[in-house]
Amino acid sequence: MQQSFPMNGGDGPHSYRNNSHFQRQDMNVSRTMIEEAIAKKLDVKCFSSNPFRLADLGCSVGPNTFIAMQHIVEAVERRYLAQGLKSEMPEFQVFFNDHVGNDFNTLFASLPTERRYFACGVPGSFHGRLFPESSIHFMFSSHALHWLSKVPEELLDKNSPAWNRGRIHYTSGPEEVSHAYAAQFEHDMEIFLSARAKELVVGGMIVVLIPALPNGIPASQNPYGVMFDLLGSSLMDMAKEGLISEAQVDSFNLPIHLASPEQMTELVERNECLTIERMELVNSRSKLVGPINGKECAMYLRAGLEGIFAQHFGSGIIDQLFDRLSKKIMESSHKLESGNKEGNLLFVVLRRK
Amino acid sequence: MQQSFPMNGGDGPHSYRNNSHFQRQDMNVSRTMIEEAIAKKLDVKCFSSNPFRLADLGCSVGPNTFIAMQHIVEAVERRYLAQGLKSEMPEFQVFFNDHVGNDFNTLFASLPTERRYFACGVPGSFHGRLFPESSIHFMFSSHALHWLSKVPEELLDKNSPAWNRGRIHYTSGPEEVSHAYAAQFEHDMEIFLSARAKELVVGGMIVVLIPALPNGIPASQNPYGVMFDLLGSSLMDMAKEGLISEAQVDSFNLPIHLASPEQMTELVERNECLTIERMELVNSRSKLVGPINGKECAMYLRAGLEGIFAQHFGSGIIDQLFDRLSKKIMESSHKLESGNKEGNLLFVVLRRK
Repeated sequence: MQQSFPMNGGDGPHSYRNNSHFQRQDMNVSRTMIEEAIAKKLDVKCFSSNPFRLADLGCSVGPNTFIAMQHIVEAVERRYLAQGLKSEMPEFQVFFNDHVGNDFNTLFASLPTERRYFACGVPGSFHGRLFPESSIHFMFSSHALHWLSKVPEELLDKNSPAWNRGRIHYTSGPEEVSHAYAAQFEHDMEIFLSARAKELVVGGMIVVLIPALPNGIPASQNPYGVMFDLLGSSLMDMAKEGLISEAQVDSFNLPIHLASPEQMTELVERNECLTIERMELVNSRSKLVGPINGKECAMYLRAGLEGIFAQHFGSGIIDQLFDRLSKKIMESSHKLESGNKEGNLLFVVLRRK
Repeated sequence: MQQSFPMNGGDGPHSYRNNSHFQRQDMNVSRTMIEEAIAKKLDVKCFSSNPFRLADLGCSVGPNTFIAMQHIVEAVERRYLAQGLKSEMPEFQVFFNDHVGNDFNTLFASLPTERRYFACGVPGSFHGRLFPESSIHFMFSSHALHWLSKVPEELLDKNSPAWNRGRIHYTSGPEEVSHAYAAQFEHDMEIFLSARAKELVVGGMIVVLIPALPNGIPASQNPYGVMFDLLGSSLMDMAKEGLISEAQVDSFNLPIHLASPEQMTELVERNECLTIERMELVNSRSKLVGPINGKECAMYLRAGLEGIFAQHFGSGIIDQLFDRLSKKIMESSHKLESGNKEGNLLFVVLRRK
């Protein structure tokens, strides 16, 4: 059974819509890289058929997805011109994909009115087929593929060496826990890549952006890892104060994996239909100026994680959990700042053979 | 500016989801006719490309749309088999279309899990382009095309002979009002047909089901016309009691047109890319047994019309309006019963040349 934890919907103060500027910043940093991949590696001559179809996998509710799709459409148009195909300029159709529980009503209501594409919403998990065979020319996925399809089962087994007592993630945990996460990620990626290879036309492209780890660096030195540790210790503090039970913390794990370029390369190479055109860690946070803002970081995490915490612990603890996190972030700001010096965003370009 | 009044969303007692069995009954009556059109008139040999793409225009939130799409997919599969194309059986992709304000979240959450097609939602008015050129093989639209894109402007002009004082529809009104409605319908249909002709592949098919009038029969003898008259007189009663103002009634008009086969034929014939394969009035109500149930009829109308009345008169009057309607329906049940003896549902099959 796959699990689904959409970003916070609607337009409120805790919504993803109003708390996704970090992701937007990552996207801005990668914009030139995407444009370059399209300009250099996308051979639109080999696409015979009108229209040109794009998909955003894990699009959430906007506005980031609209900005990304607009940039990609423009870059593809420039590619048609550069390849001397002005008279064959296609119409564009964009498929916005996310879990069934995503707030598609908000997404549709905020579609840009001046868009130069036909828009569709596609509900469903990208850990499975979403589109007909050979029907998509370009796929994009930003800040989504680090979500596992489910928590690895052995983490919940008290008799397993991978039982994750007192933590909510593999960061700072025993090796067995990391292995269980890595195995689940490999399984999920195999399904993801195999589905995408079927859905892409020959010559089609996938661009993936995900939070990641440099090769050989432990999660505990990564800003996401640090924040997951702080969330875990906030929960354990609350358990000690009797606000929740320790058993609740023991049985909760964030289904999020931070891959390294090495791991990602190995997984793609197992798929016979896809080639790696570019794989590179980007440091999108290097341009952050001024000290870390605990409240802002906590709001950012809350927009993405509130749903999964509320489902397990009840919505009554949410305000307090993220207040505590905000304070802990300030206390650990040196760790986050040093983590931010590394490249923590993996930029991947794959092509369908 | 186009107007949009989606059916009642959600799953509550007044929802379209729970009050759309009349439409479902109409669909059941037409099921055999749709299957026949596909079996006899859809030449799937001329479709070279996988997948087979279907669209439901004005799908609302289900479950009717799921039942219809399932039947159509099965009929197309049988057609592939009958044409000896078992090995070329395509994958299916279904585009569920309705206004941006439609409750797509409910639609997506109720998608059948066992479906044999890839599902997409397409937000936007069908009085305009929705899909890329030559990209859809089969289109379906049930109980949607009788909605005009807007109220004809002259109805709101006190100095126009088409000012519709004391009524909310052209039923029982002066000829100028009927003409204004007919002109708006012609304008809308021209745009609708021209958009669909562009979007359909050559040999593609459209099946349309709409409430309609037999040639030469006035709207006042049609069950819908009778109900619009009763809604209008309920509002005028409320105005006389001071619950609303007469000016509010004068300035409100239902943007719904009941076409005749003659009018529809003429409009399709103006489009050079479409041919009429079948056009026929069906009597879906002939199988109704027992006397008319006023409350049930009022609930049925409310699920579709609550939004438009609430926007103009405020939601405070809705319960009372439909209570009054329910009583008036019982008083006029002879008129409705005699209207139900005619065929009031227009079944149209068009093919893209």
